[in-house]
Amino acid sequence: MSINDLKWNADEKKVARAAFDKAYQREMEEIQNTLFDKVAKLKNDKEVWSIYNYLTKRKNNVDNKYDYRYSQLIIVFGKLMKEGYLREEDISGLSEEKIEFIKKVSSI
Amino acid sequence: MSINDLKWNADEKKVARAAFDKAYQREMEEIQNTLFDKVAKLKNDKEVWSIYNYLTKRKNNVDNKYDYRYSQLIIVFGKLMKEGYLREEDISGLSEEKIEFIKKVSSI
Repeated sequence: MSINDLKWNADEKKVARAAFDKAYQREMEEIQNTLFDKVAKLKNDKEVWSIYNYLTKRKNNVDNKYDYRYSQLIIVFGKLMKEGYLREEDISGLSEEKIEFIKKVSSI
Repeated sequence: MSINDLKWNADEKKVARAAFDKAYQREMEEIQNTLFDKVAKLKNDKEVWSIYNYLTKRKNNVDNKYDYRYSQLIIVFGKLMKEGYLREEDISGLSEEKIEFIKKVSSI
């Protein structure tokens, strides 16, 4: 079975939505904390653009990554797990098969 | 005489360069202070993107505006004076004609 053939039942959809939102929240908190840190360390006004560059990079990455389509979700969750924003307990409730696929993607 | 026919002598070029840099510095300081203010007032992590949007707008504006070509300088200085980043004392040393053109642009 390939990841494209996976079916998501109602309970799994609930788990997936909550896990997705939780990962997003964790990543946004991290971005916010890094922003606080960078702003506190600003040495001169030209470094303002280094903060702009940082936020641009994170914004593009977040916009591309958080794609809630069931056809993409295994890949999305795998990436998020690799990056540490998604934890194994968040996806408990998904089928074992899905969890295995997600772990496999996260290990790439 | 139109602004395209203006000639800039060596002393005026020095004045212009210093005025340009001073205006840039004032604007960057203002951006930095507004950034500090916005970050201090952040209520939740989703507002991080409002800071990104703010910096994007300022970055694009600054990149477009600070054009140090003598053919553009009267217009640039006029805008900067209108916005408060350039002051009349900064351009003292330019010919009266140039100063009048700059003030005219700033009043538009």
